Amino acid sequence: MALIAILPGDGIGPEVTGEAQRVLEALDLDLHFEQAPVGGAAYRAAGHPLPPETLSLARRADAVLFGAVGDPEFDRLDRGLRPEQAILGLRRELKLFANLRPARVFPGLEDLSALRPEVAGAIDLLIVRETNGDVYFGEKGTRVTPAGLRQGYDLMAYDEVEVARIARVGFEAARGRRGRLCSVDKANVLETSQLWRDVVIEAAADYPDVTLSHMYVDNAAMQMVRSPGQFDVIVTGNLFGDILSDQASMCAGSIGMLPSATLSADGKGLYEPIHGSAPDIAGQGRANPCAAILSAAMLLRHSLRQPEAADRIEVAVIAAVANGMRTADLGGEASTRAMGDAVLARL
Amino acid sequence: MALIAILPGDGIGPEVTGEAQRVLEALDLDLHFEQAPVGGAAYRAAGHPLPPETLSLARRADAVLFGAVGDPEFDRLDRGLRPEQAILGLRRELKLFANLRPARVFPGLEDLSALRPEVAGAIDLLIVRETNGDVYFGEKGTRVTPAGLRQGYDLMAYDEVEVARIARVGFEAARGRRGRLCSVDKANVLETSQLWRDVVIEAAADYPDVTLSHMYVDNAAMQMVRSPGQFDVIVTGNLFGDILSDQASMCAGSIGMLPSATLSADGKGLYEPIHGSAPDIAGQGRANPCAAILSAAMLLRHSLRQPEAADRIEVAVIAAVANGMRTADLGGEASTRAMGDAVLARL
Ligand SMILES: CC(C)[C@H](C(=O)O)[C@@H](O)C(=O)O
Ligand SMILES: CC(C)[C@H](C(=O)O)[C@@H](O)C(=O)O
Repeated sequence: MALIAILPGDGIGPEVTGEAQRVLEALDLDLHFEQAPVGGAAYRAAGHPLPPETLSLARRADAVLFGAVGDPEFDRLDRGLRPEQAILGLRRELKLFANLRPARVFPGLEDLSALRPEVAGAIDLLIVRETNGDVYFGEKGTRVTPAGLRQGYDLMAYDEVEVARIARVGFEAARGRRGRLCSVDKANVLETSQLWRDVVIEAAADYPDVTLSHMYVDNAAMQMVRSPGQFDVIVTGNLFGDILSDQASMCAGSIGMLPSATLSADGKGLYEPIHGSAPDIAGQGRANPCAAILSAAMLLRHSLRQPEAADRIEVAVIAAVANGMRTADLGGEASTRAMGDAVLARL
Repeated sequence: MALIAILPGDGIGPEVTGEAQRVLEALDLDLHFEQAPVGGAAYRAAGHPLPPETLSLARRADAVLFGAVGDPEFDRLDRGLRPEQAILGLRRELKLFANLRPARVFPGLEDLSALRPEVAGAIDLLIVRETNGDVYFGEKGTRVTPAGLRQGYDLMAYDEVEVARIARVGFEAARGRRGRLCSVDKANVLETSQLWRDVVIEAAADYPDVTLSHMYVDNAAMQMVRSPGQFDVIVTGNLFGDILSDQASMCAGSIGMLPSATLSADGKGLYEPIHGSAPDIAGQGRANPCAAILSAAMLLRHSLRQPEAADRIEVAVIAAVANGMRTADLGGEASTRAMGDAVLARL
């Protein structure tokens, strides 16, 4: 029996994870679910976005299904108490270092992108983003310079072990896809990037079947607009990955359809839709649950090693959408529940 | 009499700056031109991408018209000797801290963008990027960690004076345009960004007529794809500005049409097309000189305070293109010289 921690979070989080849990339950996989608050909801209930009980549930669980965090009510709290800290805290405490963000356009949804349909339609890429290091977790603070000025600082850094392990995730992913890995850095300016590039090149020796290329991050941001279809797997650091993965999702067009996984070395993972908590439509039963449902599929694939069950969910979602089922974000009027039902009906 | 330093650089640099100089000469403004090598060309001639003579010419000049640097031949040199270092060196030595990058779609060129024409056609924005600080110029290096691992590091930092002066450039620019300034940072993670945001908010007190907003960089990268027409002026740091300005240019579609300026506090500036040295078409007379010509217009506007002359050049370029003059990058067959002639004819 596997234990799944459900952390619904804020806004539309509870609605979409509710549908994802229904889909998981329908598969009869002997899963056990336990729920805990996170983000703004947890701050309200327990005074902290990631309370000890929530963290300990996440530690005990085999995998975490996460909704969304973010609540305008708490935007003025100290940074350490804001809802987003839950995500950073879980990544750090559970050593979730490998964020996998697939971006693709689903059949029938080519028209939702701001890119021309023929450009958007070619998108089928995976961004592998490191999420335990970089300027996110380096020494940081505010200090007074010798000239008496306030200064903010954050240390960007990567060591060879951190780079090698995320590079391997990238190479393995490319091997399972179209065999191409593009490493994104800023090695013409950053020493961190130069080490990154050196170590990725060293790691490539173990993957002669994968074609490795390198791209500066500014050029990658251009290519992601000009012809995103050129990418198979991209591997990059925490900060560049934050920017590029969101850009790639928007290029694909349907934010409500895209899942993500963040994995640790032992196979534990946190699975969440890439969309936010969407406070404007929370509680109305209008949110698209597909990204959460597809996150549940990634959970089965990566943490529970149930690829067939994952395939079943993915095929059911694609079929429901191809059949014309559309929530508001996809230009239709179907409710969250109706979309969940449509997926269940096709399992 | 004003002295203009012409630094043609590598690849198509000499061809496009040649046309820009022709246009400047045609205006009879009592300009004096002096030329010096930079980038790979300077490394070949003098063993350094920014030789002392070139730097001293740039210092003496009232403004620098720069072509492009980058030569695949020198990609394996030590970072400090690669062609791109010329740009970083000039920014640092001449204290060029304010990079202005307009992105817009010229009439008749709406179809060149990968974005849908109605999305691309709405682009008319200016990115104000800080270019003297941030993780570009902080302490950096490679060291061995206590655990014996190679580590690369770069310190990201901004102090309040650095932020306030670029913020003012942003507010002034917004005041001269549609009155909206969007400051882009990552204040939910970075202390550097939190200080950035605090100081931008302080500076806003002097610009009650400008509407200030804040956006996280990941969201900005999404919005730049979804609806770039929402932006008027964006102000941001060196690293985020590098990524977003290139992304914005590609959203507009015609890289060959976009100029840039990088200014110091005393009005001196370096003006360059945003495109690179394009070694693949160098020396063939096929490069589009419009970005260089429009950079010359920015030079007149910002360093020489000749707004009428700048307007004349811009109107002439727009007219030439609207009349169907097209170099290869714009889908036509006109030569570099023919495009230059077409602009001259409309001055
Ligand atoms: C909320 C924020 C701290 C987070 C990040 O920057 O990593 C988010 O943008 C993400 O990509 O998951
Ligand atoms: C060449 C490189 C160092 C430079 C930068 O990153 O600033 C370039 O990309 C730019 O934007 O001018």
